[in-house]
Amino acid sequence: MSSGTGIPVLDRLARRVGEERLLAPLWPEGEGVALIDQTKLPFERILIQIGTAQEMAEAIRTMQIRGSGAIGCAGALGAYLAVRQAPADPAQWDRLVEPLRAARPTAVALRLAVDEVLSAARGADEPVEAAATAAAAFVERQLEMERAIGRYGAEVIPDGATILTHCHSGALAGAGYGGRALSVIRAAAEAGKKIQVISQETRPYFQGARITAWELRQLGLPVTLITDGMSGAMMESGRVDVCVVGSDRLAINGDLANKVGTYLVALAAREHGVPFYTATTRYNIDPTCASGRDIPIELRPSEEVLKIKGQPITIEGVEALYPAFDITPAPLLSGIITEAGLFQAPFEAKLRALLEKKEPTI
Amino acid sequence: MSSGTGIPVLDRLARRVGEERLLAPLWPEGEGVALIDQTKLPFERILIQIGTAQEMAEAIRTMQIRGSGAIGCAGALGAYLAVRQAPADPAQWDRLVEPLRAARPTAVALRLAVDEVLSAARGADEPVEAAATAAAAFVERQLEMERAIGRYGAEVIPDGATILTHCHSGALAGAGYGGRALSVIRAAAEAGKKIQVISQETRPYFQGARITAWELRQLGLPVTLITDGMSGAMMESGRVDVCVVGSDRLAINGDLANKVGTYLVALAAREHGVPFYTATTRYNIDPTCASGRDIPIELRPSEEVLKIKGQPITIEGVEALYPAFDITPAPLLSGIITEAGLFQAPFEAKLRALLEKKEPTI
Repeated sequence: MSSGTGIPVLDRLARRVGEERLLAPLWPEGEGVALIDQTKLPFERILIQIGTAQEMAEAIRTMQIRGSGAIGCAGALGAYLAVRQAPADPAQWDRLVEPLRAARPTAVALRLAVDEVLSAARGADEPVEAAATAAAAFVERQLEMERAIGRYGAEVIPDGATILTHCHSGALAGAGYGGRALSVIRAAAEAGKKIQVISQETRPYFQGARITAWELRQLGLPVTLITDGMSGAMMESGRVDVCVVGSDRLAINGDLANKVGTYLVALAAREHGVPFYTATTRYNIDPTCASGRDIPIELRPSEEVLKIKGQPITIEGVEALYPAFDITPAPLLSGIITEAGLFQAPFEAKLRALLEKKEPTI
Repeated sequence: MSSGTGIPVLDRLARRVGEERLLAPLWPEGEGVALIDQTKLPFERILIQIGTAQEMAEAIRTMQIRGSGAIGCAGALGAYLAVRQAPADPAQWDRLVEPLRAARPTAVALRLAVDEVLSAARGADEPVEAAATAAAAFVERQLEMERAIGRYGAEVIPDGATILTHCHSGALAGAGYGGRALSVIRAAAEAGKKIQVISQETRPYFQGARITAWELRQLGLPVTLITDGMSGAMMESGRVDVCVVGSDRLAINGDLANKVGTYLVALAAREHGVPFYTATTRYNIDPTCASGRDIPIELRPSEEVLKIKGQPITIEGVEALYPAFDITPAPLLSGIITEAGLFQAPFEAKLRALLEKKEPTI
């Protein structure tokens, strides 16, 4: 699936995609990076060739790649490309990665990944190789985190369960195993549990219909699609055993910022005694946010609500609002599934301990 | 806007549409009934000529006309058409209205209206005129109910309020003033209150985007569209002062069956101390249902979730569920706005009293 990069550590990473049946959002290939255009999924699988850090920033900005883990990997590989663009001129690197850093304000892992790769390159004798090694290490650590989340999360999934999820927190939003929420589902299935999934379509962008459903079908799991207004009806009729969602950002008290619509699922789950989990990584925890009130909510263009594929759904003169996220307060969470284990309330000390480990958890 | 029907009582009804600036879903015209095709709104305003009871049933079944009040009016005028189809043969009438009765299982007013018109015609010397008079009386009573709901409901709307509504419970779902929820909004605006409305798009059928937003713009009110997953985010950010929704059916204890998605709004409203009202009429109360558990939930074709305008939103092999309604338990309601006043909990005795009045309330 890939042509050699000339750098063994990147070639090895590219090979893992096939060997481990990963649903990877991007991988090193030739002079640059190959990236699946997620705006075209599930009807077309189009590969984009990314050759520069600016092109990577553009792919993030236009949501051709999305999801916090994948954006972290894009940051790591994008920073490697910046070094490759100007190997002899470290002063250029910061300028080249500037659009990359700014491409998604809420993605904590993006800036961490860029910094990690540039620090490795800075002062190295072979900066391109050093950046490649750091970028590959970032992606591989992300993969191991996904497998660990799956291992810990699968324990809360009963055999025979119907799992409700919102938006897409899957392999294409991570490094390729299953991201966060879908790592739990994938690991439960791989552990031999018979499960099925209810996927919310996730307006306005239809990530649940387009990407979550596609990934789950790639894994051979039964999927039922519902609209974002139906979780209450599903729980009233006893159709949901457990909810698992991802996390765009977690305040240090456990308040969860995730795709708008998540909070309503959590409210309905509490009302019906259905366990509600978020799957997350250290990269999604923001210690500068004491609670959800401190998490800024990105307001995306109202056009994204008003039109579907360029076609208006309402008349001229109607306004729209599109807060990309909502806040699910920590008391609504049954637990937080991380790469270091399943955390139960109170969360703050556990989240701080996870962050304070100097070494990567895995 | 209409050509004469040859029956004065129907001509008078048709004239009210223009005189009172009604947004009427249907009115008598010529040999039959003119009906706005609501599946084409808001981009095209197409009138359908309905000549028979069977055609009326088909218009209901295909959702060209929808909303419980409008379906009641369609039942009344459809039964009048059945009598007109076979004026000399009363034995035929029941056969002719059979598809009409069955066109929407959850619409209580539909069967009441058909019965009322056929009883008036049965044994009358001039059955067509008798049916016309009964049908016109049904529609005019519906109009007066809408105005009364507006009058009582406007009292709970503060000046300057932002009102959140779900689906479409407006003029086109009633007889033309404002149906149920939008009668409250229209009357508040006509009383001089400065208000604005947040309308949920209401997947999968987009009634909120297409019809509610259109009606509110016809009334000159500011409208902001959101997706069905956003009510929690709106309330978290303090953007909503009061919620007003319609009611497809009300159990005698006040449990509310309304378009799927309503229940989530009610859960979020309770969480944030936002008042949540339903506007309803005696025709929406079902005394055979002791509670919401007794209300059957219509499961509509999964295709309606899986496709938008015939285009799939997900891949083959993905299933879907579309429960048309969910149940909002009575304890989540701040009050029930009816044509006979604003009811506060406990609801049962008040709803029974409303039903037990022999004469129409208005």
